Amino acid sequence: MLTTRYEGNRTFSVSEVENESPAPGEVQIKVAYCGICGTDVHIYHGMMDKRVRTPQPIGHEMSGEIAALGEGVTGLRVGDKVVVRPLDNRGELPSDKGISHICKNLKFIGIDSPGAMQQYWNVPAFTIHTLKPATDLKLAALIEPLAVACHDVRLVELRAGETAVVLGGGPIGMLVAFVAKSTGARVVLSEVNPVRIEMARSWGFEVVNPTETDLKSYLEQETDGRLADVVFEVAGVQPAVDTMTEIAGLRGRIVVVAIHGQPRPVNLFQFFWKELKLIGARVYEPEDYEKAIELVTSNEYPFAELITEVRPLRDIQRAFEEIDLNPSGMKVLLDCQQ
Amino acid sequence: MLTTRYEGNRTFSVSEVENESPAPGEVQIKVAYCGICGTDVHIYHGMMDKRVRTPQPIGHEMSGEIAALGEGVTGLRVGDKVVVRPLDNRGELPSDKGISHICKNLKFIGIDSPGAMQQYWNVPAFTIHTLKPATDLKLAALIEPLAVACHDVRLVELRAGETAVVLGGGPIGMLVAFVAKSTGARVVLSEVNPVRIEMARSWGFEVVNPTETDLKSYLEQETDGRLADVVFEVAGVQPAVDTMTEIAGLRGRIVVVAIHGQPRPVNLFQFFWKELKLIGARVYEPEDYEKAIELVTSNEYPFAELITEVRPLRDIQRAFEEIDLNPSGMKVLLDCQQ
Repeated sequence: MLTTRYEGNRTFSVSEVENESPAPGEVQIKVAYCGICGTDVHIYHGMMDKRVRTPQPIGHEMSGEIAALGEGVTGLRVGDKVVVRPLDNRGELPSDKGISHICKNLKFIGIDSPGAMQQYWNVPAFTIHTLKPATDLKLAALIEPLAVACHDVRLVELRAGETAVVLGGGPIGMLVAFVAKSTGARVVLSEVNPVRIEMARSWGFEVVNPTETDLKSYLEQETDGRLADVVFEVAGVQPAVDTMTEIAGLRGRIVVVAIHGQPRPVNLFQFFWKELKLIGARVYEPEDYEKAIELVTSNEYPFAELITEVRPLRDIQRAFEEIDLNPSGMKVLLDCQQ
Repeated sequence: MLTTRYEGNRTFSVSEVENESPAPGEVQIKVAYCGICGTDVHIYHGMMDKRVRTPQPIGHEMSGEIAALGEGVTGLRVGDKVVVRPLDNRGELPSDKGISHICKNLKFIGIDSPGAMQQYWNVPAFTIHTLKPATDLKLAALIEPLAVACHDVRLVELRAGETAVVLGGGPIGMLVAFVAKSTGARVVLSEVNPVRIEMARSWGFEVVNPTETDLKSYLEQETDGRLADVVFEVAGVQPAVDTMTEIAGLRGRIVVVAIHGQPRPVNLFQFFWKELKLIGARVYEPEDYEKAIELVTSNEYPFAELITEVRPLRDIQRAFEEIDLNPSGMKVLLDCQQ
């Protein structure tokens, strides 16, 4: 079978290796597609070399079919279409208070252990979510990032009729916008990249370019002064951190979806003055996966158009290099059987 | 009657003026005591000169008795012991979404209009909470700051059995600690001032001096690794902002009680990693006043010992000057009938 490995120093290797049987309690998946996540790009840039042991296959935004079952695995069949929720919480402690998905000793499969950017992948059976036979496996590779968006929207308790603003229209921002809209909320997307703006508009989103239109004034007018009920900070830059507290109305809720590698100046006075809430959200819980599966298989959303590129697994090196060269691109998939 | 006025430039005047009758819808209160709030000290320091029109009486942490009723006021009687919830929300708009106590056009009585540091005070009848006849009016002057603490604790939904850490043991920090303890939570107070530490210990609080004991290690050990379920940031300084995200456990909730006049570096990564929540809380709602009244009149708490000084109204200038000289002091009251 073909495998790829992150070797450090912005380098992936591609090689033929023996296909190992799944251990007891594991499932072997014939990987169909694996999306390249922002985290994978971070790994490629060497930002996570302390955490990722090299050489190691990475990747976790995948879809596939069960190829073999390890000893003791029940309730699954060879041929089932599946996705993996790549969280290994077997080190969970009482001090985690039952909050399994972010338990202290959580291992993220594809970062802390080998990932899906290979033809066959062995994972613990408890990570599997099965899909309907008719599911498009290309779209199914979006379930993992979509589950992140479902988690964000669920934790902030966005309701129909509320106004939500998404700061940043990259892949996760777009998915958050779709999930937010599915609740019946009004969604305003703030994005500066003209290609992404055009894309979002073609999907029916209300988009503001904050370099051309003052976002707060726009919201003041559009909401009769109520401003945003919910803000998703998905841009990860200081101007967005400044904006999030400005555009939130009374008792507005803010989700910081972006990962901020350093402390950021935050206007705590606005939290006090408007009784704002800031909500941290990380990965997903099983129900977020089920919701994401429901959204992907409903065929109501143009998720296919988020996939801007599909490349053979063996071209992994070029795929990562080109992501850096194309800031307008959305989701790049690796076709793991080619 | 005697009145005092903030004249700007760290100066109060004291003078005899005519006692004006209450306007229709107003109540005249014979003020018994008025506490000096941190906000009053801020005003005295000239930090709020843009908001406070001089000359003007300030003050809002008061207790008293009804002296006269304006036209159309019902349900109240001359002689009733009362406190005032000093929020004038008559400018409320639909865009405030019914969140009256922090509505956009809120006027805070005692800042945006004349306050209680005088012998008689006319206020709208809707601001009145009546007290039982046996209520000690000295203690009743603590109801307003205690209602702030009740609001903080209610909004963060602190529950029995949880561990709450209060960062900063000034007057509000102490009141937050008392209210937190009344829920059945375990309360740990972090304070550096030896006099305040001694005071808090004498009231039975578990106190850590973070300059002597590492607060996070202490909590790790004491909670078997769960860390704090709830953190109240009442210190208003950067080290406390750094500490609040460090000592919160998984899905910990943080209330920023202190007022931060400038944006503060906040570790947003910790919000993501541990799914923390930051909750802004401002002033109070009617139910917080009722809760504060219940706590003050229950005689179960040593609130009397928080009052470290009572001075005649006419000594207002010296009272403010001495607060600046005594960082260990707790609550100073003005006796408005002397």
